[in-house]
Amino acid sequence: MKQKVVVIGAVAAGPKAAVRIKRLQAESEVVLIDQDTYISYGGCGIPYYVSGDIPDEKELRSTSFHMVRDERFFEKAKGVTTMTGTRALAIDRQQKTVLVENLKTGEQQQLSYDKLLLATGSEPVVLPIPGVDLPGVFTVNDLHKAIAIKDLIAKGRIGKVAVIGGGAIGVEMAEACKDLWGLEVALVEFKEQLLPNLVDWEMAEILAKHLRDNGVDVYLQEGAVEILGNEDGWVRGLRTNQRTIEADLVLMAAGVRPRSILAREAGLNVSRGGAIVVNEHMQTSDPDIYAAGDCVEITSLVSGSKFFAPLGSLANKEGRVAGDNIAGIPSVFKGGVGSFIMKAFEMSIGSAGLTLAAARAAGYDADLSLTSPSDRAHFYPTQAIACFLLVFDRRTRRVLGMQGIGPMGEGILARINGAAPLLCAGAAIEDFNNIEMAYSPPFSAAIDSINAASYVAENICDGRMRKIDIRDFLAFMENPDSRPDWLLLDVRHPREAEPFVEQFGSDRWLALPYDEVRERYRELPNDKTLVIVCNAGSRSYETQLYLRQVGIERTLVLAGGMNVVRRLSVDWLP
Amino acid sequence: MKQKVVVIGAVAAGPKAAVRIKRLQAESEVVLIDQDTYISYGGCGIPYYVSGDIPDEKELRSTSFHMVRDERFFEKAKGVTTMTGTRALAIDRQQKTVLVENLKTGEQQQLSYDKLLLATGSEPVVLPIPGVDLPGVFTVNDLHKAIAIKDLIAKGRIGKVAVIGGGAIGVEMAEACKDLWGLEVALVEFKEQLLPNLVDWEMAEILAKHLRDNGVDVYLQEGAVEILGNEDGWVRGLRTNQRTIEADLVLMAAGVRPRSILAREAGLNVSRGGAIVVNEHMQTSDPDIYAAGDCVEITSLVSGSKFFAPLGSLANKEGRVAGDNIAGIPSVFKGGVGSFIMKAFEMSIGSAGLTLAAARAAGYDADLSLTSPSDRAHFYPTQAIACFLLVFDRRTRRVLGMQGIGPMGEGILARINGAAPLLCAGAAIEDFNNIEMAYSPPFSAAIDSINAASYVAENICDGRMRKIDIRDFLAFMENPDSRPDWLLLDVRHPREAEPFVEQFGSDRWLALPYDEVRERYRELPNDKTLVIVCNAGSRSYETQLYLRQVGIERTLVLAGGMNVVRRLSVDWLP
Repeated sequence: MKQKVVVIGAVAAGPKAAVRIKRLQAESEVVLIDQDTYISYGGCGIPYYVSGDIPDEKELRSTSFHMVRDERFFEKAKGVTTMTGTRALAIDRQQKTVLVENLKTGEQQQLSYDKLLLATGSEPVVLPIPGVDLPGVFTVNDLHKAIAIKDLIAKGRIGKVAVIGGGAIGVEMAEACKDLWGLEVALVEFKEQLLPNLVDWEMAEILAKHLRDNGVDVYLQEGAVEILGNEDGWVRGLRTNQRTIEADLVLMAAGVRPRSILAREAGLNVSRGGAIVVNEHMQTSDPDIYAAGDCVEITSLVSGSKFFAPLGSLANKEGRVAGDNIAGIPSVFKGGVGSFIMKAFEMSIGSAGLTLAAARAAGYDADLSLTSPSDRAHFYPTQAIACFLLVFDRRTRRVLGMQGIGPMGEGILARINGAAPLLCAGAAIEDFNNIEMAYSPPFSAAIDSINAASYVAENICDGRMRKIDIRDFLAFMENPDSRPDWLLLDVRHPREAEPFVEQFGSDRWLALPYDEVRERYRELPNDKTLVIVCNAGSRSYETQLYLRQVGIERTLVLAGGMNVVRRLSVDWLP
Repeated sequence: MKQKVVVIGAVAAGPKAAVRIKRLQAESEVVLIDQDTYISYGGCGIPYYVSGDIPDEKELRSTSFHMVRDERFFEKAKGVTTMTGTRALAIDRQQKTVLVENLKTGEQQQLSYDKLLLATGSEPVVLPIPGVDLPGVFTVNDLHKAIAIKDLIAKGRIGKVAVIGGGAIGVEMAEACKDLWGLEVALVEFKEQLLPNLVDWEMAEILAKHLRDNGVDVYLQEGAVEILGNEDGWVRGLRTNQRTIEADLVLMAAGVRPRSILAREAGLNVSRGGAIVVNEHMQTSDPDIYAAGDCVEITSLVSGSKFFAPLGSLANKEGRVAGDNIAGIPSVFKGGVGSFIMKAFEMSIGSAGLTLAAARAAGYDADLSLTSPSDRAHFYPTQAIACFLLVFDRRTRRVLGMQGIGPMGEGILARINGAAPLLCAGAAIEDFNNIEMAYSPPFSAAIDSINAASYVAENICDGRMRKIDIRDFLAFMENPDSRPDWLLLDVRHPREAEPFVEQFGSDRWLALPYDEVRERYRELPNDKTLVIVCNAGSRSYETQLYLRQVGIERTLVLAGGMNVVRRLSVDWLP
């Protein structure tokens, strides 16, 4: 069938759909338009371009075989008519036309379509505070701004940077400015943790400490109040509700929202959050109009609810499915789990599915398991600790989400990728127990981190493990008098336990090595709640089980153990 | 319930079950016996101990918190009665006793049981050839032999090593001897490829070249005929059906088989291959006797057939499930897909599910997609090529297996771990298309390698991509006169294509850049079958589609492209 297809938006989902349609249906005419002059670029690479890891912006918009994906490329290599610098102004659904304007010449024209694809992407949230228009203040949402930011830094014009927003882009930009350029960087996040909605507090706190250890000043629970300028009008700082931060560059990474005004004005269904509503064929409420990428909401395959997941990986998949359907192949995109991975200095952090907070908000009887295993066989020389958090529903035993943070490399990725298909399939804890992750000592442990996380979840679900929330533990350590009935029981090797006993006294921190519990448990006081501590949590769990069997019931396990505590910003460690 | 449990075999599945039972059912008496004095060790770590990566064998049998897992440890820390150096001689199923012998004292005793677990593991296949008993010839199946091998090497007594068997252990041992000790190493494999049954020929050949590039002599399709000794009786070489290889150490890694004589003699069901037959509770044909680990066969979650998968990761899971059931928790182990990963010098190679060969043997209408994408965003500086092979059933479109080989790191692991849950769930190509692997430029591409592999599989299944088997391509390059009707069409950049055109002449290797195909296709000869070549295969595929649309039907795509060819042992590259 020969048809005319117009695609609005040429970054990720749009070009993907356009070329797919052209491959499937060569006789059709496909017109790709974008208001920008840079198209089809890897926006997720912007922080690595700014950092200097990627020397030339052209690489972000080139193919793997080093052709620049510009208008000419799409025309010549793909047969797609491409109009850059061209803005879509309005859709006439009755006439099936799009009114477009050439931004250079001001010339307008009507493009007729049989099928239309909206791939209009997202736009950055600009906080409504004074000073956002000052020169030196940038959002980080397109290649032009990336080039401008890098130019400023490369010319030595910038010494201090303030980043507003502790989401993925904010953290990546903080690293880009600090790691390679050595600038002074402050990161300000309004919420109580970094990466809100992506990971839970424990993971975010490990990340925050790592950023601080690498010289980034991280300020949580601080709202940006005003951006300050100096006499000549350039930005000079950021005022929060707590302090004033000097900065000659302010990056606003306060999130993005769907760019859907065109759809809304055309009368298409748009969600309360502003995302275009599509079915699993990526079709809007008008059957001849499709939408894909950051401008839509997708179905969470965990909760069934719609959610906004502006991720490049999803945009490409959605674009391909939209392209299929436009070309007459009835393909479906069922939804996703928001698989996420990020580099931060020498660590990587990732997640898929729901956070504990999101799961509870969605009505699940949610709990978490926190584990801190070796990221490969513990006897392999390059092994290191990674921390994982599994979110599950106590009632149905379904796993709702998984998060991990560990050394840079693909170790966390391997676990997020292993967990994602299970989350999509509605897997239970028992499915995670037995899922077969590949094992060899240089890569993993015989009991993979995924399996270990679900073992602990199972033990919690079945009431075998009774744990203490790590925040309650930290609060107790800050203010021990708040729980006079608590006593720490350290079951690690005496060499590890002793400095703690010395620091806190044996009436607060008692040592009893794990392998002596069976013979010496009678020495334990019976008027206290024992908070059992080891490095990873497993010896504590075994101790708890044994003590219960001999009648000592008042015990709590510090899940994740000192491996986690040591990775948090605490100041009481001996 | 208080019961008496005897566990025979104390390497992986046995100890895992024993401690699980004791945790779940403290009142029970658990007796763990093993004929060896070394127990509960990471056998998969042996090559890394021999190489010197792991300096001390104690590390292989220690916990992550550095306690040696010996008799005393299991007694004191776990409450498990442990008898090492004790061989089980016979099971009396009527009396429910096991006759055991202390190998040191010769003393025998009957151990009574309510429940018995057989975790007797596997034993190495010893080829029936002359010389296998010579000093200097070792199988690689336990810690004693590992220590003996390393001692010999460390004392400088060994200069040349011959490894018999190109399976995982053979390859790992070849690396161990070559990489850190710098010995001369020859690896002999009877079949036409390394890692038979684990990966297909294409992957194995990339591995073979990498081993050769690292100085290992790889001899395929060569059978070991005789092991030769010198005057003082020590081994001096290995004779194959092709040559004599000098060696003062011969490692026999010719596979393993289930150690099941005890079970067989007790009248339990044992498969033709010698594996103990168990149900999904890991229960043998006697409901009071369980079995787990390398001595059993498990269900392939791809084909539904039983298969022998002697993997440490599975042994631990099976042991835990056996332990659950023995302790009264009705847990199930449904089977596996044989997830596999291995380091070889600077590469890693992995697989899950069926190989093409195995799939065809099992009656599937199986085909493969071969891809060679960047292992992360192609603009990210540390990107490198990895090669993937997806096996699928044309009729049902089900994915049957996935294999990958690429740079050392966890990149291949991440894809095998992502594929394994999908394979377990019987996923189709379309499920692989949309599965959401986490993306960020330092880790992956927006279209993940898994998705890219299934896109190609889909294009093949739907008849859009018509490909040439890479072996047919190689045969043609070796003997071009065999197919006078074939012409290579190189659609890469002229700079890449020119050396080939110069070497082979434009009547055999024609260059037409990808982005000029639309304007210049009329220059192509119409009396030839065009074998289209690029680096990764995607430009070739697009060219094939376009040529078909303009009436040029006789084309074949070299899937995987020159990225794969360059990683094979071919001598005709310009």
